[in-house]
Amino acid sequence: VAGTDHGKASDESLPAPVFVLVAPQMGENIGAAARAMWNFGLDRMRLVAPRDGWPNPRAEAMASGARRVLDRLRLATTTAEACADLTYVFATTARERSLTKLVVTPEHAMAEARAMTAAGERVGVLFGPERAGLETADIVRANAVVSVPVNPGFGSLNLAQCVLLIAYEWQRSAGVATPPDYRLAGARLATGLEVDRFVEHLVERLDDVEFFFPEHKRPSMIAHLDNLFRRAPLTDADIRTLHGIVRALAVKVPGRG
Amino acid sequence: VAGTDHGKASDESLPAPVFVLVAPQMGENIGAAARAMWNFGLDRMRLVAPRDGWPNPRAEAMASGARRVLDRLRLATTTAEACADLTYVFATTARERSLTKLVVTPEHAMAEARAMTAAGERVGVLFGPERAGLETADIVRANAVVSVPVNPGFGSLNLAQCVLLIAYEWQRSAGVATPPDYRLAGARLATGLEVDRFVEHLVERLDDVEFFFPEHKRPSMIAHLDNLFRRAPLTDADIRTLHGIVRALAVKVPGRG
Repeated sequence: VAGTDHGKASDESLPAPVFVLVAPQMGENIGAAARAMWNFGLDRMRLVAPRDGWPNPRAEAMASGARRVLDRLRLATTTAEACADLTYVFATTARERSLTKLVVTPEHAMAEARAMTAAGERVGVLFGPERAGLETADIVRANAVVSVPVNPGFGSLNLAQCVLLIAYEWQRSAGVATPPDYRLAGARLATGLEVDRFVEHLVERLDDVEFFFPEHKRPSMIAHLDNLFRRAPLTDADIRTLHGIVRALAVKVPGRG
Repeated sequence: VAGTDHGKASDESLPAPVFVLVAPQMGENIGAAARAMWNFGLDRMRLVAPRDGWPNPRAEAMASGARRVLDRLRLATTTAEACADLTYVFATTARERSLTKLVVTPEHAMAEARAMTAAGERVGVLFGPERAGLETADIVRANAVVSVPVNPGFGSLNLAQCVLLIAYEWQRSAGVATPPDYRLAGARLATGLEVDRFVEHLVERLDDVEFFFPEHKRPSMIAHLDNLFRRAPLTDADIRTLHGIVRALAVKVPGRG
């Protein structure tokens, strides 16, 4: 593998897979693939015999913001050369092949890649040229095939889209929990007591206008309100707003309250 | 929502989310979004006030193969109109907003969407215009925000890429198990007995040439071979090939065997 590290130093010790673009045609697509990778923190690309040579101004223009990926890339003249130091290689392909191969989903592949790179293995993912895809000889070289489970009646992922989905699954495989989260705009969630006090305030004012009628339905009606104001998490700011609304709306009935 | 169903009949009874493109600018991007959706079997798109009007020849040219999505699409003049019949709406946005909103991953969003649509809810996903993204007013309308967890230092998904990732997660949420699978090219996996017989054959021929030396290491060396030929699943065809190789290589030593 002929190294062409210009710019930042390459840090091959970080465990992450290498994406190998085999015989890419359009410079724009190389740039778009670089962007797709860097969106998910991947920056190790290798190019095998790019049609228009290297460097490629169109690739650089398209990669803007993800130049880091191009600055670190390595050129190779053959797939064998690009894979020489890799210990496990996935080949991306949608087309059916007459080969006996392990076929995995992107999710499975990147979970495996995560485990293997953590154990010191050097993992690569091969992407074929636009339209034609990988040649059989390149797929033979791979240890497994990654296949995106697209609509059987319509599978039309372009090179950068395929790179994007695999890179996305790499990021997902980190298992960095991104659970559902309430993004709070300069606020904190209201406490149970704050909600209680608001509901009490509301009920008081509603009692003022004899809202709860007939009397025997009062408990269930209050439970309904209580539930309603607990369905969505409210912030302390929301609670203040609600108090304000109730105060503004409530007509103080003379002789009551 | 002004329906513009030309071509195939719309079947709104199928449980799947609607993708709402708000104020898209380039026809090409509308076409690319249609392709991205249809790759994962989604065909319900709505357009809110597309900049260049509708129909759009560039969208149609780009969508080729996914024309079905454009044929079924609905036009609306406002986001409110496009969402009028929806009961749960996700807004896709990468930008930080000064709103208190539930923020979920694409995976979580589409798992929720799968459950909700199955229960009869009408779910939509809003996508903002290129570059600018959704306006705050549109995000307010949504019940939750979907945020793709991109590289904090570089998030540059274009419209069709964002649509692609959400559509991909919709497909994944089907839970249609796509376990790792050996794609067998006109062959079946070899039975244990077939592998046994091959290893026996190999050991016989290796014994002919006194391969296992010293004698006390013979069992562990055979175990190693046994293990080696069981690591990768072999097909019946592979076994025949291996027998052939051993036969071809083995030199029949006179006076032995």
